[in-house]
Parts: sequence; C-alpha cells; structure tokens
Amino acid sequence: MQPFSQFDERGGLRHLITLEGLDADLLRELLDRAQHYAGRPGDLRLHGRELQGFTVANLFSEPSTRTRTSFELAALRLGADVVNLDMMLSSRVKGESMLDTIYTLQAMHVDTFVIRDSQPGVTQYVAEHVDPHVSVVSGGEANLTHPTQGLLDALTIHQFKGGFRDLVVAIVGDVVHSRVARSAWRALTTLGVGQLRLVGPEELMPPAEDFAGADRFETLEEGIDHADVVMMLRIQNERMEQARVPDADRYFDRYGLTAERLRRARPEAIVMHPGPMNRGVEIASDVADGPQSVIRRQVANGVATRMAVLSYLAEARRKRS
Amino acid sequence: MQPFSQFDERGGLRHLITLEGLDADLLRELLDRAQHYAGRPGDLRLHGRELQGFTVANLFSEPSTRTRTSFELAALRLGADVVNLDMMLSSRVKGESMLDTIYTLQAMHVDTFVIRDSQPGVTQYVAEHVDPHVSVVSGGEANLTHPTQGLLDALTIHQFKGGFRDLVVAIVGDVVHSRVARSAWRALTTLGVGQLRLVGPEELMPPAEDFAGADRFETLEEGIDHADVVMMLRIQNERMEQARVPDADRYFDRYGLTAERLRRARPEAIVMHPGPMNRGVEIASDVADGPQSVIRRQVANGVATRMAVLSYLAEARRKRS
Amino acid sequence: MQPFSQFDERGGLRHLITLEGLDADLLRELLDRAQHYAGRPGDLRLHGRELQGFTVANLFSEPSTRTRTSFELAALRLGADVVNLDMMLSSRVKGESMLDTIYTLQAMHVDTFVIRDSQPGVTQYVAEHVDPHVSVVSGGEANLTHPTQGLLDALTIHQFKGGFRDLVVAIVGDVVHSRVARSAWRALTTLGVGQLRLVGPEELMPPAEDFAGADRFETLEEGIDHADVVMMLRIQNERMEQARVPDADRYFDRYGLTAERLRRARPEAIVMHPGPMNRGVEIASDVADGPQSVIRRQVANGVATRMAVLSYLAEARRKRS
Repeated sequence: MQPFSQFDERGGLRHLITLEGLDADLLRELLDRAQHYAGRPGDLRLHGRELQGFTVANLFSEPSTRTRTSFELAALRLGADVVNLDMMLSSRVKGESMLDTIYTLQAMHVDTFVIRDSQPGVTQYVAEHVDPHVSVVSGGEANLTHPTQGLLDALTIHQFKGGFRDLVVAIVGDVVHSRVARSAWRALTTLGVGQLRLVGPEELMPPAEDFAGADRFETLEEGIDHADVVMMLRIQNERMEQARVPDADRYFDRYGLTAERLRRARPEAIVMHPGPMNRGVEIASDVADGPQSVIRRQVANGVATRMAVLSYLAEARRKRS
Repeated sequence: MQPFSQFDERGGLRHLITLEGLDADLLRELLDRAQHYAGRPGDLRLHGRELQGFTVANLFSEPSTRTRTSFELAALRLGADVVNLDMMLSSRVKGESMLDTIYTLQAMHVDTFVIRDSQPGVTQYVAEHVDPHVSVVSGGEANLTHPTQGLLDALTIHQFKGGFRDLVVAIVGDVVHSRVARSAWRALTTLGVGQLRLVGPEELMPPAEDFAGADRFETLEEGIDHADVVMMLRIQNERMEQARVPDADRYFDRYGLTAERLRRARPEAIVMHPGPMNRGVEIASDVADGPQSVIRRQVANGVATRMAVLSYLAEARRKRS
Repeated sequence: MQPFSQFDERGGLRHLITLEGLDADLLRELLDRAQHYAGRPGDLRLHGRELQGFTVANLFSEPSTRTRTSFELAALRLGADVVNLDMMLSSRVKGESMLDTIYTLQAMHVDTFVIRDSQPGVTQYVAEHVDPHVSVVSGGEANLTHPTQGLLDALTIHQFKGGFRDLVVAIVGDVVHSRVARSAWRALTTLGVGQLRLVGPEELMPPAEDFAGADRFETLEEGIDHADVVMMLRIQNERMEQARVPDADRYFDRYGLTAERLRRARPEAIVMHPGPMNRGVEIASDVADGPQSVIRRQVANGVATRMAVLSYLAEARRKRS
C-alpha cells in the first residue's frame, strides 16, 4: 500500500486531515478563497451554490456544538444537503464495523465526510479507505490536528496584520495537549511567520522535537513581550494539576491574560482564543471583550474557512472526474 | 443602560419576547400576515423565499417537539437555513458562558434566535446583548410568556369569529402557571375582546393584580356560560395536588370539558387547547375531536404565525440596514 | 369501518406499509422509477424537485442510522423539507397520545410520515387515521415488514440478473425474525421468481404456513447449491441461543458464507446482505468485500428506491387533489 497522501494523482487536494504537507501557495489559495466567503455575509442573500447536489455528512463523536454547527452552516450556505450523525466511529468495533458505516454512507452518495473522533488516526484511516471521489475533512482530532482551525487563525491574523513575515506570534497555555496550537504552528510556519513563541508552564510544553523553530518561554510576561499576536489556549482543570497549578485562580495569577499584562505586547497586538473560553482562568473578561480581541472574528472566519475548504475539495473533485 | 425594548430606534419590531407593548395595530398587522401564510398550504408549492440567506437557530432547553418543529418548519418554508441546538442556556454558567455561546452563533451569522429556556429572563437577557441586526424570539418562557402562542390563538379566534369586540372568551384551568393564558390575555385584551374570563380552582388562579380586566369564576359551568370561545389549559399532576384536587378523575369531575357542559356555552362556541392534551383530564375526548373543536387549526395557525413573525422581523431588519 | 387499504379510491397507492397487495405491474413501475433515480448520482447536479413544497417527517423509534439517513437523503434530494423526530410512537400512551402527536404534525402540513416503531401495527394504525392527503411509509416494522427493503432487493437483483423468472434465490439465516426476508419473499414471489429458498437452522425457520411457495433447506451447502442470488440475513446473539447454536463461531461454522461455500452457488451468483453485517458471523469478510458482493449497491439502491416511493406517493396525491 502506498503511503497515505491527502493529494490526488494530479496533485490536487483531496482530503484535509492535517496541514502537514500543504505548501505556502496552497495555504494562500485556501485563505484567499476563505477571504472571499468572509466578505459575503454583509449581504446574506449572496449564498453560494457551489455544493448544490453534494452531500456532506458530519460525523462528530465529541459533543462539539460550535465546530459542528460551523461546518453545518458552511455546507448549507453552499447549497449542500447535510446530514448530522452523532457517532463515535472508533467505538464501532462490535456490530457494525467502522468502515461498514462509512461504506454505507458512501454508497448513499455522501461526497464529503467531516469527522471528529477522539481516537488518533481514525480520520486518516477513513480517508485511506473511501472511494476516489469522496473527501474526508478533519473536524479536530485528539491533541494532534485541527486543520480548519489553523487556517481560520491564519486568516484572522492576515486580515488584521496584512501578512506574516514580520510578526511575533505567542501561543499561550496548554500547548502540549492542544491541536489548535499544533495546527496554528504548522500554518504560520509554512506561511513564514517572523517568530513563533510557545508560552506556558514547563509541564504543559511539548517535547523538544515538536514545534520545530518555535521559541519557548515559561513566563507570560516574557512570552508576549512585543508580540503582535497573542493566542490564548483553553486550559482544562485536569491539566492544571498536571502542571502543578493548584487551581484556576493560581493559573490565572500566572498565565491569565489581563489588560495590564497585555500592555507588554505591541500596542496594536490582537488577542485570539479558539473558544470556548474559560473567562477568569486563561483570560480576563475585559480582555476577551476588549478592543484588541478578535475572538468573534475568528468564529466568523471559521465558517468562511470551512466554506473555502468544502468548495475547494468539491472543485478538485470535479476536475478529477 | 436603557430599559430593554423590543423595538428598534425607528419603532420597528426587532425582538418578540412578550406581547406586552405591542399595540392593536401591530398585532393586527402580524395577524394579517399570518393569515396570508395560513392561506397558503392548500398549494404547497407556494413556499416563500422571504428568509432565503437567513439563518435561524432554534435553542430549546425543554423537550418540546411540537413548538420546535413548528418554528423549524416555519423557517424552512421561508427558505431559511436552520440549525437546531438542544441546549439549556441557563445551565451554561460553567465552561462556556451563556453569552459566549450566543456570541459564537451570532458570529456565525445567525440572524434569528428562537429560544425556550426554563429560567425566566434568559430570553430577554440574550436579546439585550445581541448585535443590532440580530433578532430574538421567545419559544415560550417559564410560566410568563409565549407570544407566538398568544398570536396564533388570536388568529384562530379571528378566523372563526371575525373579530374580538363582542366575544366572551373563557380560559379554563391552571391559569396561574400558564404562559399560554398570559399571552392569550395580553393579545385579546389589546385587541379589545368583549369579556375575558378566567376559570379554575382558587388555588390555580393568578394574583389579583395579574390579568387586569379579566373576570374570575370558580366553577366551569358559570365560567363558560354563554361563552363564544372556551380555551382549555393543560393541567399537570403536581398542580392538582396544589389545587387540593386529589387526582385526574376528580379534576375531570370539576373542570373537565364534557359535551354536556359545553352546552352552557353558545351553540357556535369554539373549543381551543394549546396541546398537548390530557384527554379525560381537562377535556373529554369527544369534545377534543368534536365539531366545535378548532385545536388542529390552532396547530396549523402556529406554523403560519411563526412564518409571519420570522418574516416580519427579517423585513424590519432589512429596513434598518 | 372499512378494512384498511393502502390504496385510494381510484386505486392509486397512498401508503406503503407492506408489499402485500401490490401486484407485479405496480412493483415493476416502482422499480422502473427507482432505476431512474439510481441512474442519477453519476451526475449529482441532477437532483429532483419532485417534492418541492412537501414536508417529510421521519419518526424513528429504534436507533437506525442507516435507514433514517437513507430516507432523509431521498427526501432532501427531491427538494422536500425534512424534519427528524426521535420518538417511540407506541410509548405515547401517557401525556400526549400517539394520534395527537400525529395529528399535530399533520396539522403542520406534514405530507408524508416515515415511521419505524418496534410495536407491530403502529404504522398501519397511523395510516388508518391520517387525513386523505397524507401518506404513511413504513421504515421497517418489528419482524413483519420492510417494504422499501424488499423493493431495493428486487431492484438490485434485476440490475444484475435482468429479471426474476429463471432465478434461484436463497435467503439464509434467521428467517423467522426477519422483516427483510418477509419483504423480499413478497416482492420476489409477486415478480415471479423461479425458486425461493429459505435456509437456516430449524429453530429459525418460519411456520409452515408462512412464505408460501418457498422451499426450505437446513444446510447452507444444499440451500445455495446452484443459486443465482445468495441473500444473507443478520443474526443476533440472542437468536443463536434460541437456535441452539452456542456462539458466533459455531454459527459461522454452520451458516457463515465463506468463499469456499459460495462455490456451491452459480459462478455468477451475487451475494446480498441488508446490513449491518456481522463479519465473521453470518458472512466472511472476504466474501462481503469480494467480487460477487453487491452489498454497497443495495445501499445505493436504497436511496433510489426511497426516492421512487416518495415521489410516486406525491404524484398519486396530486392526482387525487
């Protein structure tokens, strides 16, 4: 068996499981397309019909209202038929096997599967087995990859900063467990970001070999000093213990982004968060809602990015067939 | 902060949280519009496109198949994209806060939120915080308000009686806990109903200051005497105890609407019920299915009324922007 | 009350609860229509609009991702509005009664109900009570009937074999509990199949008076000898005990379809399974995925068949009104 590739024989993108292997030109093409859709909602009547006749199946195993709804709206606004299936694919060992479920939906002429599964490798495994005309898109996978999040983060930065080359981007918090951080790192590194910084307690930093090229900081103050972009990550209670931080208050004391600390960054720095936020834990409410926050724009860009990915894959498919 | 208003700066309706504050002209305008849609289903091909490009999010915390489906069909039949989210907004204190959930969906370009939450005040609280182009519609709130139900009840009465002025309308049952009764009272009083009667055991009557202008009766026989409209309310088991009625049979003995009792009302009186009915508790089955029952027409009018509200708010929004 | 009929007064099909009573001409008409839709997915842009303005409600009580999704996609691809309601109709004795639920949805102008309920008779009971313009379609009923499955199986056989007259079709496994077997028998017998064979352990064979005209075999080897079509049924653990088969391995030893055993059938025999499969129990994986397997085609034909049924009923309704 050939090694897995997200690309078809002509080199066109067929799946989006990870941003690994997508070069800067392709990323820019996807961002341009996303920007096109991001410009649309002003006139809501300008929905696309690019996916008319296509069927998108959302297979989400984790309860993820926001990401599933974002994909659902992206597909509906391009004219697709959408079915939502709450299912943990990786639990399908007994009874109906995982691939039989996929093959069944594929036989019903599902064109694109959007999959979130808590078990690493499931999304790629599905992509390796579907028919040539079918595409698989990751809706976020374990702590590994969340490619549409990486794209929407890059799009948001580009909208506010006009480029990547001279930027200092700080990713703050539970980096080791974050698919968001990994996908942002991958996108921004490919796009030639000036400096990428990882900031957080040592216990939540990734192994040295991961995040090649990134600089590491253990204090928030140093980590965001003169930064252009401050990207806060969500911290979960069980991770604080692991990081020997006794509770949310103590975490906030050390790594919470307050208005005062934000002054260490550049005056025009933007503040990002993938959501859902723990207000008062990793970010102060006045910063989350403040003038430098672009968090809601990230959400809007999320729909535009998913429209871009879905329509791009559909177009590539048309060229193949 | 300004006191909350459902109206925009030009005086156009922006939200529909309660019928309080809507004058007779506006109610009549909404009823006319609903009548327009109510006339359509004969030719089902005549679906509207008034909401094409709009997105409606149904956020229902209580299991309410009928009302949620009614809103969903209303939105779909006007061409909207619809997402259904089962969520108890008021439980969102931890993790993702209530408003962050709303802001996230708003950033995805949801135009209209339809919300049912068991906690009073949640719907208005959301309406106070959404962006100017976004509308919030109540899908029924605690025991307080259910504005589209009040409108559909008024529409049904108008269809069968041609007006309100000379009518005697009796609302029977658990009035104090009923958002249906409150919204019907509000709509009918504004529209100038002849006489509004509240009928039920003393323990289930509202405080004296509520339902201004309504007359109160403790026996069903007196309450529906010569009535033009008999509106039965659903009674719940736990309420019977509170009303010192030992069980459903005893409740039926005192307040159940039977064919015999219905003869006390005018011969051409109509019988209404918001559903779901407890047959044999508040209403006898032969009355529910009898010639004077307009209960199914109420359901049909429910879809038409919700189409009217959704399209009216969308039109008002277009005028604002 | 008249005996229930699936046909309207002009003899047009109004409901599809069972294949009983549908003559060969009508079955062929439905299969022709299904073949028309089966030919479409090659060009996905060719969705129909035959159900535009129609509303289909899927009421599924058993978790049945595959059949519900198949009906949902069939309806969406014909332009219908679709609502999915997870509900066990037969449990609706308390509170809202079963028929009130149906009447409520009917009043919202649901045109077609697709119902799967575990209690026998519920689907017909609903069909007996809906308004003349409303159709009811079974999504599979207890162990009795699954008419769209019977049609899709007939369609699949026709596609591969060109007809029915000279064919030997073997249905293998838990026949007595299988609505799939009953509907296949009904369809194939009506269409004049050459020989229908039932194959399985004695304990899982139906009573002698059922499956009129079918021949019975207790060993797989004899049962599929020179067969043109081998239709495997799903076996459930609790049924093995009943058939005095101690476990899945032992069942596979006796009734599992292996490549070796399949050589007893004709060389060009096709292998069918309604799904979901128990690989390694009733069928070997290499047979399920092998060149003679038409299992995925059955799934594709399922959508086409449901499109055919839904559009046929809608057309018959238009002629009535």
